[in-house]
Amino acid sequence: MVTGRFITLEGGEGVGKSTQIAALAAALAARDVEVVATREPGGSAGAEAIRALLMEGADERWDARSEALLFAAARADHVARTIRPALARGAWVLCDRYVDSSRAYQGGGGGITDADILALHDFGSKGLLPDRTFLLTVGSGEAARRLALRDAAGADRMGNKPADYQARLAARFADMAAAEPDRWRVIDAEAPAEAVTAAILAELEAWLP
Amino acid sequence: MVTGRFITLEGGEGVGKSTQIAALAAALAARDVEVVATREPGGSAGAEAIRALLMEGADERWDARSEALLFAAARADHVARTIRPALARGAWVLCDRYVDSSRAYQGGGGGITDADILALHDFGSKGLLPDRTFLLTVGSGEAARRLALRDAAGADRMGNKPADYQARLAARFADMAAAEPDRWRVIDAEAPAEAVTAAILAELEAWLP
Repeated sequence: MVTGRFITLEGGEGVGKSTQIAALAAALAARDVEVVATREPGGSAGAEAIRALLMEGADERWDARSEALLFAAARADHVARTIRPALARGAWVLCDRYVDSSRAYQGGGGGITDADILALHDFGSKGLLPDRTFLLTVGSGEAARRLALRDAAGADRMGNKPADYQARLAARFADMAAAEPDRWRVIDAEAPAEAVTAAILAELEAWLP
Repeated sequence: MVTGRFITLEGGEGVGKSTQIAALAAALAARDVEVVATREPGGSAGAEAIRALLMEGADERWDARSEALLFAAARADHVARTIRPALARGAWVLCDRYVDSSRAYQGGGGGITDADILALHDFGSKGLLPDRTFLLTVGSGEAARRLALRDAAGADRMGNKPADYQARLAARFADMAAAEPDRWRVIDAEAPAEAVTAAILAELEAWLP
């Protein structure tokens, strides 16, 4: 049975994930790979409806436990309706954020542990993990500069976080990458976008037709 | 510290739960008890938004796991924002359906166990259970008659189920009541509505001021 590859991009706000997803999709399509480019929260009809609940409204709209359950519900729908069917027909799935973002953003805060997030993922999505996860990193100065640009343009519920929060987030991503080196690759995303794309593609070369 | 009482009504479609909630709320108010009458899914701003996702659309809109997570998310919001604050100030909370409806409707189907539903409830709502749960029952003939009347008026996603499904549901409720007799009371809801209200109030008499 043919199966595609499941690739996720992770990291804080403004590290260039969506730019890289688009560039990778084009590069893979040029190699005759069927690509499904998607993002979380969202990526299926039901998950997009849940996304609207998560992204709109005041910071305190949801308490941490409701929010974690909503992310898990959206992910379950996305996995069942978009990701698993694509992988089953041999497509590559490129996803902007996945369960590791829930672990970084929700796990460890409000009394919610990393094990809690993974237990919800086991229930909702039978624990599906990516074949490869790329952590895009920028230095704290560059992250602050990009966030300031983004804040000036208006942020949603998920982007309204102070700089020290972003630093803790970066540390949690780095810890996850270090703990599971077979799945994760850390990519310096301060390089020009084309160089970042090339670095990611080099890591995927062995799987390409 | 004063705490109120948390009372839930459970049972299949059309057994008279909402009628009884209204009658009980009036009877308790006449005894100078502060009452919060609520229902699931819903009962808080966030939970009502999730309710709309759950009740609208086609039967197959959600797979079973997404649906269970959405119910748990709505319940977590309802407990955190409505039920616990009411109990903390000494109010009685009367709730039309609660976690036992998730156990009856979702648990046991689609590979989801009763233990799964209770684990989601432990995570989302710290496992809060009612002080007393009343199971309203009617015979299968009467249930079919009431359902036919309701179907003629148009049913939502949760009401569109065949008669044998309702029979399995009634059996699951009966099993839960039998397994936890300290919490549950089974009430014959084929009696006139006033008699049903009186039977419920008699069971609550010891807690009333």
